[in-house]
Amino acid sequence: MKKITSPTNPAVKRMSLLNSSKAARYEQRRFVTEGLRLCCDAMLSHVHIEKIYFTSAAYDKHTDEIKKLIAYADSACEISDTVQSRLSETKTPQGVFGLCEMKTQGITSADIIGGGRYIALEGIQDPSNLGAIARTAEALGLDGMITFGCCDMYSPKALRASMGAFFRLPIMVSDDILSLTQNLKANSVNVFACVPDRDARDIRELSFVSASVAVVGNEGNGISEGLKNICSMNVTVPMAGRAESLNASHAATVIMWEMMRQQNGK
Amino acid sequence: MKKITSPTNPAVKRMSLLNSSKAARYEQRRFVTEGLRLCCDAMLSHVHIEKIYFTSAAYDKHTDEIKKLIAYADSACEISDTVQSRLSETKTPQGVFGLCEMKTQGITSADIIGGGRYIALEGIQDPSNLGAIARTAEALGLDGMITFGCCDMYSPKALRASMGAFFRLPIMVSDDILSLTQNLKANSVNVFACVPDRDARDIRELSFVSASVAVVGNEGNGISEGLKNICSMNVTVPMAGRAESLNASHAATVIMWEMMRQQNGK
Repeated sequence: MKKITSPTNPAVKRMSLLNSSKAARYEQRRFVTEGLRLCCDAMLSHVHIEKIYFTSAAYDKHTDEIKKLIAYADSACEISDTVQSRLSETKTPQGVFGLCEMKTQGITSADIIGGGRYIALEGIQDPSNLGAIARTAEALGLDGMITFGCCDMYSPKALRASMGAFFRLPIMVSDDILSLTQNLKANSVNVFACVPDRDARDIRELSFVSASVAVVGNEGNGISEGLKNICSMNVTVPMAGRAESLNASHAATVIMWEMMRQQNGK
Repeated sequence: MKKITSPTNPAVKRMSLLNSSKAARYEQRRFVTEGLRLCCDAMLSHVHIEKIYFTSAAYDKHTDEIKKLIAYADSACEISDTVQSRLSETKTPQGVFGLCEMKTQGITSADIIGGGRYIALEGIQDPSNLGAIARTAEALGLDGMITFGCCDMYSPKALRASMGAFFRLPIMVSDDILSLTQNLKANSVNVFACVPDRDARDIRELSFVSASVAVVGNEGNGISEGLKNICSMNVTVPMAGRAESLNASHAATVIMWEMMRQQNGK
């Protein structure tokens, strides 16, 4: 098998670029999965893996899994430790990287109108928050996630925090949240704006029937006024302490838990 | 007022060391608060601020607040942009730093036995998780937090994620969680071990009466066997999705919300 030892090899440069540049990712419709777990998650979710890169140390340590990845991917290539260091976004790299094709497994407004419980994110900027919210949405059994104006879910940080949830959770990347919200509301979907406001409706008083969407806004500024104004209702997590508000991903967690509280485990 | 322009000035070196070294923090019983918000939080929580460092740009932008900080602190000193860069842990520094004394505002086992709802953390290693859990605990109105074998709450990352919650939330840093748990149980405190295990008791079926403690474990390995074995009961957040489990801070959020669900807003 071919082995790449130079960090200036064009394939390595391409992977680095895909790690660092959102524009490159969308132009090429490709992204990088780092780590054995994330590469295997991609495979199990039928993401197209164009190439698997691995160090010999990784191969020795995880031979069975890497053999499966090699069999699944279009091609594979060994890399040196120097190349690994160039590619890795973590302090303790595992030595496995996948070059993956973006997979559209979208949801449409018709799906949402058809029923289910969804989390919508407006302007989430921290990739760790975006990934963690997707992971929690999957764990709690939500039917899907809508993002608008958020950071890129294919960035290394977001992918890592998601624990592969982006590959499994139905996701809509909206480019017009206002029209979408109007359309959903016109079709009897409840769209709740989650706000840190004591006058908003306590989320414990609501029944999150199918179909419902809970909107969580940007970490610093919350939901934009334009969107808030057209949501069905402002809702809030009642707070007892002096913290100004929960951080965005923790607020989303409480809302999602409350949406699913009546459904889970039945 | 004195101005420090050299990044090799002993005071600057000391601040840098306090940022990077846990050992230095505990030896000197000092830590650094970065940012206007965190410095003001420290002041409002009556943390002893030995010295305030600020850039002239920060002074011009936040004159009123920095004047208050200067009046509150033992002393103050202007710093150059070069010094700011050396001290800052963030990409867009605000140019305000405090040299603060650690403040013990502990809780004792007697406090817990006396009543209330508490979150206990065993081996949380990510400072952002530790800070975020403290912030959420405060926001949801828990009575306090117990940590054992966790990363340092006075690290820059943990402080930043906490939004100052460490200054306000009653905290016990335990050096023997097993003895503590035995003692609490012997005094009728319920100590719940939160585990990602479908056989454990669904948290929705519990009544988190006063006095209750919920234990959340390490991000990768969960709660140690030794501690799990002596807890009153294993409890779990029911999960519907394929995610292996919620991340530690999101699991803690759901547990804390459920503990407080019957209390908040009444």
